[in-house]
Amino acid sequence: MQVKELASGIKKGNRIALAKGITLAENDAVGASKLLAQMGPPGKAFVVGITGPPGTGKSSLVDRLIEAYRRDGLRVGVIAVDPSSPITGGALLGDRIRMSEHAGDMNVFIRSMASRGWSGGLSRATSQVIRLMDAAGYDLILLETVGIGQADIEVVGVSHAVLVILMPGLGDDIQVSKAGLMEIGDIYVVNKSDLEGADVMVVNLLSLFRGSSRSPPVLKVSALSGEGIDKLRDAIDRIRRSFVAGDDDLRLKSVRGMIMETARGAAMERLAVVSESKAEVLARQVLAGKTTIEAAAARLSA
Amino acid sequence: MQVKELASGIKKGNRIALAKGITLAENDAVGASKLLAQMGPPGKAFVVGITGPPGTGKSSLVDRLIEAYRRDGLRVGVIAVDPSSPITGGALLGDRIRMSEHAGDMNVFIRSMASRGWSGGLSRATSQVIRLMDAAGYDLILLETVGIGQADIEVVGVSHAVLVILMPGLGDDIQVSKAGLMEIGDIYVVNKSDLEGADVMVVNLLSLFRGSSRSPPVLKVSALSGEGIDKLRDAIDRIRRSFVAGDDDLRLKSVRGMIMETARGAAMERLAVVSESKAEVLARQVLAGKTTIEAAAARLSA
Repeated sequence: MQVKELASGIKKGNRIALAKGITLAENDAVGASKLLAQMGPPGKAFVVGITGPPGTGKSSLVDRLIEAYRRDGLRVGVIAVDPSSPITGGALLGDRIRMSEHAGDMNVFIRSMASRGWSGGLSRATSQVIRLMDAAGYDLILLETVGIGQADIEVVGVSHAVLVILMPGLGDDIQVSKAGLMEIGDIYVVNKSDLEGADVMVVNLLSLFRGSSRSPPVLKVSALSGEGIDKLRDAIDRIRRSFVAGDDDLRLKSVRGMIMETARGAAMERLAVVSESKAEVLARQVLAGKTTIEAAAARLSA
Repeated sequence: MQVKELASGIKKGNRIALAKGITLAENDAVGASKLLAQMGPPGKAFVVGITGPPGTGKSSLVDRLIEAYRRDGLRVGVIAVDPSSPITGGALLGDRIRMSEHAGDMNVFIRSMASRGWSGGLSRATSQVIRLMDAAGYDLILLETVGIGQADIEVVGVSHAVLVILMPGLGDDIQVSKAGLMEIGDIYVVNKSDLEGADVMVVNLLSLFRGSSRSPPVLKVSALSGEGIDKLRDAIDRIRRSFVAGDDDLRLKSVRGMIMETARGAAMERLAVVSESKAEVLARQVLAGKTTIEAAAARLSA
């Protein structure tokens, strides 16, 4: 399919065209950027980033949110990203998708993406996939990261609202203060509210924010029973209403994140192309004392 | 202190000079590379990377290894890296260090390093700190990562031997196949061997490797009781003997990793310097439809 046809198919909401466009973004940076050049500026879909430690129930929560927003007739795109899983992550995400009860709903589009080593392709591709879904007319995009770490934090930086998902009993304060989670959330969610310690955790989180300049909502939910999902949705909608009303700051933040992620990804991809054999030759020179590691690194990126 | 004095202090094994050199590496890329230019090629110290999911007892295991190698009279450097913790990680690592029983031993040098956002400084600095410890005459460097994720995997890529630390009961197969841990380990350690499921996990790990081209040792240990530490140490020493005997491939692998990490870090640092206000301006142009995100990203890195 030509780029032009593909672009028009995506804009008409054709699922097969969208799937092809996403595959292009994953595999071909140049092709994807030609495709995206035909799409116009992003900013129609509201993007919710969902991050937090593994095992906190992010996927179940995503299912609940799909359910809630589908009831309102919104078209929902889901991107599950696993930056920490360079090789085998794809399979895990595959399971996650097969399990989803929404896989058959034509107004829900779920796609998983796994990292392929340190090429940086994931950073660039994630932002491109969001824009493709945006162009395809999805109203809401849920961007879920599976891992935890710097890369996840950067990935959700392209969102308009960030949910940080936690659960009781995993070393409460530590899991929040770790990984910079304190700084990035617009809404904090204590999932698995039926577990002992959920209330204490909410109190601890609130007190962590006291004294800081921010006071994001801290909500107790159970993705399992559905308890608290309405409140979570209300909290998301408070931000979404401002977005729909045309809030420029939210759009700017997201686009800035996309530019940064794309630049970062492109720099990594450039390095990956040159690196392996060239690094081998340079490493021999370093060991022979003919050059330094810093000079070798500079030549690698030159 | 002048760079020359600092360099000579470090080479004489002066702890204060080493500490100052490390701080330089953390804060001043250019200064650190001048300092390192006076150090000669790396490759005297044997570097053991230690990674795995949080909570598997990596720090206790590091304490045991320090103990074991100190009994042999080796001088041991320890670097605890938390790539997933851009802001508050330092404090956690601080606790880890205060807890160490080896903090008072003059032949043990422990240093923690936390990430500072996506500047890439950590990648570059970690490799520089290893080389400073190498120059300071440490025989063995234990490089422990606290998080789990792509960044951790890259960090341990500068090691001569990589230990992957796991424990029973955290979704056994998944924690290994996740995050590419299957590909990077030279030795797999099932810690907390007193817990139920340890034997099953060893069997599962062995079967994961069956059919692949690799068959790394899988060892059951208890950092708590000390059980199995001798065997772990034997496994490490099999690789270390080859290193001491002059194995070029091991040295090349490590130096190649250092060059790649330094190049990667330098690329990120360059981007971070230009980014914030420039990205803001570009984001406005993208939203106005005057440029694309790809073009903006290219101008950011140009």
